[in-house]
Amino acid sequence: MIDNKIGTYNFVAEPFHVDFTGRLTMGVLGNHLLNCAGFHAADRGFGIAELNENHYTWVLSRLAIELDDMPRQYEPFSIHTWIENVYRLFTDRNFELVNKDGVTIGYARSVWAMISMETRKPADLFTLHGENLNQYASNRECPIAKPGRIKVTSDIPLEEYQIRYSDIDINGHVNSIKYIEHILDLFPMDTFKEKQIKRFEMAYVAESYYGDTLSFYKEEKDDGSIAVEVRKNATDVVVRSKIILK
Amino acid sequence: MIDNKIGTYNFVAEPFHVDFTGRLTMGVLGNHLLNCAGFHAADRGFGIAELNENHYTWVLSRLAIELDDMPRQYEPFSIHTWIENVYRLFTDRNFELVNKDGVTIGYARSVWAMISMETRKPADLFTLHGENLNQYASNRECPIAKPGRIKVTSDIPLEEYQIRYSDIDINGHVNSIKYIEHILDLFPMDTFKEKQIKRFEMAYVAESYYGDTLSFYKEEKDDGSIAVEVRKNATDVVVRSKIILK
Repeated sequence: MIDNKIGTYNFVAEPFHVDFTGRLTMGVLGNHLLNCAGFHAADRGFGIAELNENHYTWVLSRLAIELDDMPRQYEPFSIHTWIENVYRLFTDRNFELVNKDGVTIGYARSVWAMISMETRKPADLFTLHGENLNQYASNRECPIAKPGRIKVTSDIPLEEYQIRYSDIDINGHVNSIKYIEHILDLFPMDTFKEKQIKRFEMAYVAESYYGDTLSFYKEEKDDGSIAVEVRKNATDVVVRSKIILK
Repeated sequence: MIDNKIGTYNFVAEPFHVDFTGRLTMGVLGNHLLNCAGFHAADRGFGIAELNENHYTWVLSRLAIELDDMPRQYEPFSIHTWIENVYRLFTDRNFELVNKDGVTIGYARSVWAMISMETRKPADLFTLHGENLNQYASNRECPIAKPGRIKVTSDIPLEEYQIRYSDIDINGHVNSIKYIEHILDLFPMDTFKEKQIKRFEMAYVAESYYGDTLSFYKEEKDDGSIAVEVRKNATDVVVRSKIILK
């Protein structure tokens, strides 16, 4: 029996989507995850297009990815996605990454808010959708920790970056995937010769725009994880990220 | 009757693959074109994987894209590809871009060399493949000019860029698509508010590597076109590009 609550989408790791080790990049995986979220929601009548008609849209708030492995160049792989919870102001959407042999090699958790396109303020999902969203909630297991709190105290930026044309999406702000790429570009390439990303977290706090300068603050924590904060124009936090290497 | 010489591949313009105007980016289109070249060659027994077994590989030398329009976010589109000519040291491969309504909205031409993976020198396609490649040559029309000569005389770089982790592909050098993104990032975003790219040319001259610094030289020509040269470590030419806006 097919569980209609779970969406499954198939991909191939394209040559320009793998890094120098031949593994799919985190940015491309993130792009696929967000596309799967979009496909799954659209197929069930609560996608961006439907929401936009009523002047609402989905906004990604948190993303946590935990991996044992990554697809290699030219390898097919699949992503399953499902909704875990619908709260008043957020939904939890999970993902499972399956390799070419049908082996699960990772999971991801994401948190989404629905906002009004006019006020940019969160919308009450219960008022707007009632039971419609909860009927899609699945109790499929997602055995990774929820996104946690990320704290960066450093006041000395490691890098500054002027936002460019290629960073900007159709909404006029830096796209969610570009932050992932810029954050991983803070690491010397040698890091990824020796280590792989075990867990990658993103907290999307605010938007940044063409003309803004992004400052990147990076610090290693006592537990060996690396925390990154991106601020725009040296003040406002835009995104935070936590990376655990293995 | 299906013409087996022509490969046709279908895509959708994904949200993170369109720019702020909602149009597919040139980098993503380039990625799709090169993937189509790979699919088409692999399906006919002369793809990278087969060549690699014999220690040869395909190298992209020139790319010229001419467009009336670009697919918009969420729109399906198709790419046709075929080989036009097989010369001793090069092949000409062409592309046709077709929009959601089946209307042709652009063409592209590319020039590829086969090189030895050991010597990195060009290999003689006739000696290696004999008639095998020529049987796939199609006389389908590609009504755009071949890639021309691009000349940049400026000695004052507009920008310098230190190559990063995300630029590097499985071969250890900057991937062909990243140059396209970096070159278009030389333009202020406002340029693409008012104008679209009518023609985009790339000449791939040499490889660049992690640790290299790229310098970008840009000049406007008498005919209104913009020529860009990218040099590594301020001396060796890596790529040249010509952009015609409309």
